[in-house]
Amino acid sequence: MKAPVVRITALGAGTVGSEVIRLLTERGEELGARAGATLELKNVVVRNPQAPRSVEIDPKLITTDAAAAMAGADIVIELIGGIEPAFTYVKQALQQGSTVITGNKALLATHGPELYELAEASEADLYYEAAVAGAVPIVYGLRESLTGDRIMKVLGIVNGTTNFILDQMASTGAEYSQALAQAQEAGFAEADPTADVEGLDAAAKCAIMASLAFHSRVSIEQVEVEGITKVSATDIANARARGQVIKLLAIAERVCTGEGDRIRAQVYPAMLPTSHPLASVNGAYNAVILEGEAAGRLMFYGQGAGGAPTASAVLSDLVAAASHRAHGGHAPRESCYAQLPVMDPNSIPTRYYLRIRVPDTAGVLATVAGIFSAHGISLETVHQDHGAPSQVDIVVTTHEALQGEVQATIAALRESEQVLGIESVLRIEG
Amino acid sequence: MKAPVVRITALGAGTVGSEVIRLLTERGEELGARAGATLELKNVVVRNPQAPRSVEIDPKLITTDAAAAMAGADIVIELIGGIEPAFTYVKQALQQGSTVITGNKALLATHGPELYELAEASEADLYYEAAVAGAVPIVYGLRESLTGDRIMKVLGIVNGTTNFILDQMASTGAEYSQALAQAQEAGFAEADPTADVEGLDAAAKCAIMASLAFHSRVSIEQVEVEGITKVSATDIANARARGQVIKLLAIAERVCTGEGDRIRAQVYPAMLPTSHPLASVNGAYNAVILEGEAAGRLMFYGQGAGGAPTASAVLSDLVAAASHRAHGGHAPRESCYAQLPVMDPNSIPTRYYLRIRVPDTAGVLATVAGIFSAHGISLETVHQDHGAPSQVDIVVTTHEALQGEVQATIAALRESEQVLGIESVLRIEG
Repeated sequence: MKAPVVRITALGAGTVGSEVIRLLTERGEELGARAGATLELKNVVVRNPQAPRSVEIDPKLITTDAAAAMAGADIVIELIGGIEPAFTYVKQALQQGSTVITGNKALLATHGPELYELAEASEADLYYEAAVAGAVPIVYGLRESLTGDRIMKVLGIVNGTTNFILDQMASTGAEYSQALAQAQEAGFAEADPTADVEGLDAAAKCAIMASLAFHSRVSIEQVEVEGITKVSATDIANARARGQVIKLLAIAERVCTGEGDRIRAQVYPAMLPTSHPLASVNGAYNAVILEGEAAGRLMFYGQGAGGAPTASAVLSDLVAAASHRAHGGHAPRESCYAQLPVMDPNSIPTRYYLRIRVPDTAGVLATVAGIFSAHGISLETVHQDHGAPSQVDIVVTTHEALQGEVQATIAALRESEQVLGIESVLRIEG
Repeated sequence: MKAPVVRITALGAGTVGSEVIRLLTERGEELGARAGATLELKNVVVRNPQAPRSVEIDPKLITTDAAAAMAGADIVIELIGGIEPAFTYVKQALQQGSTVITGNKALLATHGPELYELAEASEADLYYEAAVAGAVPIVYGLRESLTGDRIMKVLGIVNGTTNFILDQMASTGAEYSQALAQAQEAGFAEADPTADVEGLDAAAKCAIMASLAFHSRVSIEQVEVEGITKVSATDIANARARGQVIKLLAIAERVCTGEGDRIRAQVYPAMLPTSHPLASVNGAYNAVILEGEAAGRLMFYGQGAGGAPTASAVLSDLVAAASHRAHGGHAPRESCYAQLPVMDPNSIPTRYYLRIRVPDTAGVLATVAGIFSAHGISLETVHQDHGAPSQVDIVVTTHEALQGEVQATIAALRESEQVLGIESVLRIEG
């Protein structure tokens, strides 16, 4: 019996798309055997057919007409990225009943519910393992393999670019701008690094992970986000002196409150003790810790970006999708029955590290300490460093305090005539 | 619309079974919401209804008649363990078309293909996430989330009991028998620890992982297995002096040979450099490294045993199984199209550590070195330690050599009149 043919349209032939096409060409038979289907790459939609590519694509497959190319496709693989035109194409694919495989975290974190609804209406499937942490199976983990557990917390390093930059700063003592330039040179940061360094990429992944973990709808706008652009070499040195490192964390946590469970969804650079399992995740690697009520603490680790690892995730989705097209069955549908609300970041208890620049005169420390005390914030440690001639940096860490109260304290510090500036505000995790 | 009812029979109410029943009682509604089904625990089959249990079970659910209990069950959860009567029950369940969820590694590694065939014949599904590494989703990883990749190697610590014992030996300097007694006292080893300490439990998991990773049938008999009972405090101290630790590893590797790909399937205590990611996996934890051709190196880490973590895996399978029963779709079928042969362990290149006891007389080292040389084995390091009065331990490590050649060398050493005994033979990994 000949295996049923599954017709595939690929949208995009950039770094990941090219690798998907290469592997599909080289390993198509093997992947088909796993799916019980004959995988047929029908066409590849690109913006510019003449653009140089890292893989040779049969010119007959290449087209710029997405709508025509997708007609009759069983599976559409979207690897364009960004919101438009990806959103339009993915909607069309789902509306016509094609299975969609995408690695587009921004699209999912912004329009996920709408895409799921379109998929539901036409009984189409939506796969997106590649959207979070490359080949590290976080989406599978949350959507399928841990769905029997109650997830309490997801804590991860999910952006390789920022991890590479922070790592460079830590190992070379470089300032942020130098480390960014090095990352760009090494191919780990894009010419416009905004989405990575401002934490938006991590926030999109955080929204996706929170939605899956807590069976609720969490969009990127609901994630409190702070990037790494203000992290300084001084803070990294101070962290090291305290036995800590600075990592950009994505945090999605189930917080049990008197009014029921709430979702904490945040992305920020945090100080972590070097003994923390995420502290040793270096370079462009990703790692995610999942805490299940029954499972305890699990950690997943691997390459979170790059052509081949991301292609691995896409092709795994492809095998599942092709198997379902050929033999029945579906991807899991959206699970948002719990509808837990996202909590106000101001009400999240957190520990803080602050570096406050003051004139080198008597009595300033007492003033600063008084402002903390007046806001009910208890200090854990206080150090003074010479920040500049005739100036001093007061470096404090706080005990756990509500973020809102710390923000109010910072506002009061800024208003004080004895404070020259707030040099850094970093949160402490673990 | 009321969600379809899915009727569940549980076989066994031991450590894991009790925890599954407890969580199913407490969280049944939530799990049902995820599956889109009403989960109904129909009955619980036990050997002795009067036995004390860690969870209260409605006496009306308890029965000793498995055949009657399973009749009409949509899903049978088998948590008895061992081959019989589990094998008989699981066969009956699959023959009648019930979905089977099991954590029984011994059964799967011995009779997996027969079970898959029965499942295929009646279109029943077989789930077994709990069979490998508790809640750490290795089965999902290999069977689903990495199925688009070509797995090159699986390397793992998959037995918590032996990891706990080796850890105790390393941290306290205890000999094996003392550390075993401590593990038994701490509840990490059973009264009859054979299956764990002889490596049989790890070998069953190795067979399951190799089958999934390489789309081939690998049974426990095809896994070369060596347990930890011969590991001595001296070897652990020697390992530490070399910057290494000793861990019981399960290795499943795709070896590319001139005659096509072969499977290496082995379980043995190996010396690992402390910088290796598996070296810091302590206590009863499990960790598995998967190397995909495209994905690169991924690591999964978590609690590999215990009631709650294993129940987490069972319940995740239950949500998937219930969703499929209620709304269509199937678990992945057996994938063994590749049928790669398992290679002869003698032809596997490996590095060795040997401790050879000799009389403290001149010329012995030359004799020993000559025997290695005569067998074409190149030595990397040679040390001499005083093993006992008037005796010396020659400690050597070899460069990579075929296991068969090293075995022949050991036989020759044993025959030499200048050798008092081979105190230890350990392989080196990484």
